[in-house]
Amino acid sequence: MILVGQYDSPFVRRVAIALHEYGLPFERRSLSVFKDFDAMLALNPAGKVPSLVLETGETLFDSCAIIDFLDGEAPPAHRLAPADQPARRRVLQLEVMGITLAEKTYERGIERNRRAPTTRDPAWAARLERQILSLSTWLEAEAAGGWFHGDRFTRADLAVAVAVQYRDRVVPRLGGPDCFPKLDTHRRRCEARPSFQRVPDAVDEALRSGWQGSA
Amino acid sequence: MILVGQYDSPFVRRVAIALHEYGLPFERRSLSVFKDFDAMLALNPAGKVPSLVLETGETLFDSCAIIDFLDGEAPPAHRLAPADQPARRRVLQLEVMGITLAEKTYERGIERNRRAPTTRDPAWAARLERQILSLSTWLEAEAAGGWFHGDRFTRADLAVAVAVQYRDRVVPRLGGPDCFPKLDTHRRRCEARPSFQRVPDAVDEALRSGWQGSA
Repeated sequence: MILVGQYDSPFVRRVAIALHEYGLPFERRSLSVFKDFDAMLALNPAGKVPSLVLETGETLFDSCAIIDFLDGEAPPAHRLAPADQPARRRVLQLEVMGITLAEKTYERGIERNRRAPTTRDPAWAARLERQILSLSTWLEAEAAGGWFHGDRFTRADLAVAVAVQYRDRVVPRLGGPDCFPKLDTHRRRCEARPSFQRVPDAVDEALRSGWQGSA
Repeated sequence: MILVGQYDSPFVRRVAIALHEYGLPFERRSLSVFKDFDAMLALNPAGKVPSLVLETGETLFDSCAIIDFLDGEAPPAHRLAPADQPARRRVLQLEVMGITLAEKTYERGIERNRRAPTTRDPAWAARLERQILSLSTWLEAEAAGGWFHGDRFTRADLAVAVAVQYRDRVVPRLGGPDCFPKLDTHRRRCEARPSFQRVPDAVDEALRSGWQGSA
């Protein structure tokens, strides 16, 4: 399999970590959705990352759809989401809120780093920051101290940990251990896992592609 | 069940149509993510629509996660996605591209209708339009003439039809029957279904919430 995208994207990073959790080997093609936009559109009609090219030649798009497919193929003991309700919807809802935190952080970064400087809208940025804080506050309240659901690492833990790490890199004043101590503990616990260690949050790649790191 | 959101959102509309396809009754709470943002944040930590309040009192977020849950609960004959691979990943990939078309159309509308007028960035708008056209071109090529996959209406058909209807309302110059004839035929075929007829694309609601319809 080939994973397309850079690890400065929390969506690419999430899929890479999942692949390591499943024990699936993969190559990586490190393309930027900004510097390599033409090549990206040829690989993925949305011009987004990640894409995952399967051994069959099929290309899958969207981090959630990719992980959903991989999870269904994994041996039951290695799956990252429970099969039965209500546990399954609980885990997938926490995952969605983690992904949405990453999306709103991405949009906040776009406002600062990708738009022409005279076209930044403080009202829109304030709306995004309110969403980031609201999501963080909700996730902090849901954090149980151990894993987000049950006694095993799940897709919820993965999505939230990657999103928190990303938020603290892109808009550090909206996060950190003082504001959200349980989320910070969770992030650290996840970052210590071998799967996370093999996929470092790629500030280097971010800087190479012209992304300005901090707020 | 209670569905929260307005039908001018393709994400809310998609869930409402799915509920009718499954034969599940529901009430609706018509809140705007703009005019009612405070109330929305209280209902959904992301301040987004749709939310679906279940009979258990749980609230589910995200149109994809909601439909995934409902589909898993439906009797097999009523499900909107195949259970087995590779059919399942094929349908879910087409669905994701439909959703992404709706998302990029939404972002293009935000650029014109929600940002302060002096803060519009033509380069960013052009990037979004390129993504809209690329996704439409890809979906047009995938359209088989009948349903997108097999001989039954699926989540792929639903997502694509709702996205095409929405694109043609928000940015009509980027779509329509001349540019994408197969997608237009597909949209019309779906809009004729009873489930779609019960959930009209709500231009009225859109105008009431201050959204300016056409490009």
